Amino acid sequence: MPRMYSGPAGHGLGEWEMIDLIRSGEGPVPPGETWVGDDTAIVRVAAGEVLFATDVVVDGVHVDLSLVGVDDMGWKALAVNVSDVAAMGGVPLRAVAAIAAAKDADLRLMYEGLRAASDAFSCPIVGGDLSRSQTSMVSVAILGVMDSGYAPVKRSGASAGDVLFATGPLGSAAAGLSVLRSGLEDKPDATRERLADAYRRPLPRIENGRAAALGGASAMVDVSDGLCADLYHLAEASGVGFSLDHVPVADGCTLAEALSGGEDYELVFSAPDPKAVENSFSVRGLSAPIRIGACVEDPEARMLDGEPVPLLGWEHEWS
Amino acid sequence: MPRMYSGPAGHGLGEWEMIDLIRSGEGPVPPGETWVGDDTAIVRVAAGEVLFATDVVVDGVHVDLSLVGVDDMGWKALAVNVSDVAAMGGVPLRAVAAIAAAKDADLRLMYEGLRAASDAFSCPIVGGDLSRSQTSMVSVAILGVMDSGYAPVKRSGASAGDVLFATGPLGSAAAGLSVLRSGLEDKPDATRERLADAYRRPLPRIENGRAAALGGASAMVDVSDGLCADLYHLAEASGVGFSLDHVPVADGCTLAEALSGGEDYELVFSAPDPKAVENSFSVRGLSAPIRIGACVEDPEARMLDGEPVPLLGWEHEWS
Repeated sequence: MPRMYSGPAGHGLGEWEMIDLIRSGEGPVPPGETWVGDDTAIVRVAAGEVLFATDVVVDGVHVDLSLVGVDDMGWKALAVNVSDVAAMGGVPLRAVAAIAAAKDADLRLMYEGLRAASDAFSCPIVGGDLSRSQTSMVSVAILGVMDSGYAPVKRSGASAGDVLFATGPLGSAAAGLSVLRSGLEDKPDATRERLADAYRRPLPRIENGRAAALGGASAMVDVSDGLCADLYHLAEASGVGFSLDHVPVADGCTLAEALSGGEDYELVFSAPDPKAVENSFSVRGLSAPIRIGACVEDPEARMLDGEPVPLLGWEHEWS
Repeated sequence: MPRMYSGPAGHGLGEWEMIDLIRSGEGPVPPGETWVGDDTAIVRVAAGEVLFATDVVVDGVHVDLSLVGVDDMGWKALAVNVSDVAAMGGVPLRAVAAIAAAKDADLRLMYEGLRAASDAFSCPIVGGDLSRSQTSMVSVAILGVMDSGYAPVKRSGASAGDVLFATGPLGSAAAGLSVLRSGLEDKPDATRERLADAYRRPLPRIENGRAAALGGASAMVDVSDGLCADLYHLAEASGVGFSLDHVPVADGCTLAEALSGGEDYELVFSAPDPKAVENSFSVRGLSAPIRIGACVEDPEARMLDGEPVPLLGWEHEWS
């Protein structure tokens, strides 16, 4: 655990009390592992490949704390990292979390969100760092593993002719953000809540990613930036184009939200043998993945129903 | 790599250009690994234990960007994580870095500092996330491994009678911070530069940590919060007290700086067989570790030259 320098030890909730808080939430630590409280955690792995990634959630950039809670922020920070592992076809193993919290941020509530996601996705938080900051942010790093004998599904493996799938309909998170912003009162309450939850508490598709990997997926990404933008990344990395003939739009959402909304965390993947994929989902009791189109030879082609699709999506700008 | 939502793609330095920048600095990627550019990095590990930790460096909390450069901030973020691995007796393997940079922060310079530390400590940065933020911060997570057959050295393994060692004299970083703040002109230039560098560009003691582990160290911490505070943590975790008879003060520093300054990143460890430790350092061509005292039976004892030492050191306060 961390070093902390910015002020003298006092009567507030100190780092060591936070460690106690985190420890109190720990499940049973497996033999041979050490989690929170030492300089590093000790984690046991099988020989071979581990997946390793980090994503940060920053107040005012990735979340707006006037629209969502700090617990949602904690949830999201873990969920987006788990989604990165899911997008390789992997299973989350362990996470560490660095929290920088503004003075008025409720650290316990933030940790509750992290912890709820950790429980939901079976990905224990085994270490971390805590700091004050003017801007609240939660940075998570994650370790994941593949099912034995299966290689991670990269972005770069798609070939012309591969069928493109989405693991579910798209647009909910973008529509949910609109709901939170404007309280769209023309939609029934249950819909509004479902959409808002899709934005506030995204669900990584771990089992779907595994099913895709085990069904022979050739390339995969999660829909974080938006279908068009993420497919663009997959196509670019693979040196293929894509042609979509069906964009699955989630209930209560628009086509634009489905195409470019982002943050849905559905998975999009290519596969040479669509039947093998569908079978892999079916035997695992998962909803069938949705065929959305195919990869094509021309690396410049980004088509929807025969027309070019714009590159929509979000990316930071560095000036 | 990351998702980014906060603004439309534009003409500045975008995430994908940053990925290119990071890639351009990469060394050769070992067979079977994939680094920057996919949803996660793929890292190969031997079966067994991996060390896993995260530490964040926040502007205004852990560094003051009016005193040090953003490149120093990048360096420090990697160095403090490497130090956590060193404090277990491990060797750094791979790191990921999440950067949130204020509008006026020079991201390329920040990355240069990270990269320089990555080169210096042979710990490639294999993935990351980039974001704007009102407050600049760099959060690094690290994977480390032990030398084959050796167990990580935890904080909790010290026994009464074990000799306490420090890997070097203490106080330089605290004195360096004073130099940077006040430009202490009564010290010669070379000293001032050495002290300032100790603060700006801390050096984790990787080889010293390995030598301690291989020499039978029973417990170890890095001096991040200050000798007293970190020894306190070691003693607390081990259920022993400590009695110091020699505090090694670095040239140009005061005893108070050596006792409570923090951020030196020397290692402090206990060992039942001091000769074995000294031999382990000697055969590796390392300067001999400095005997500073011993662990004692009474778990309440925190003594220096027969007097109680105060618990000095720094910890955040959470109100």
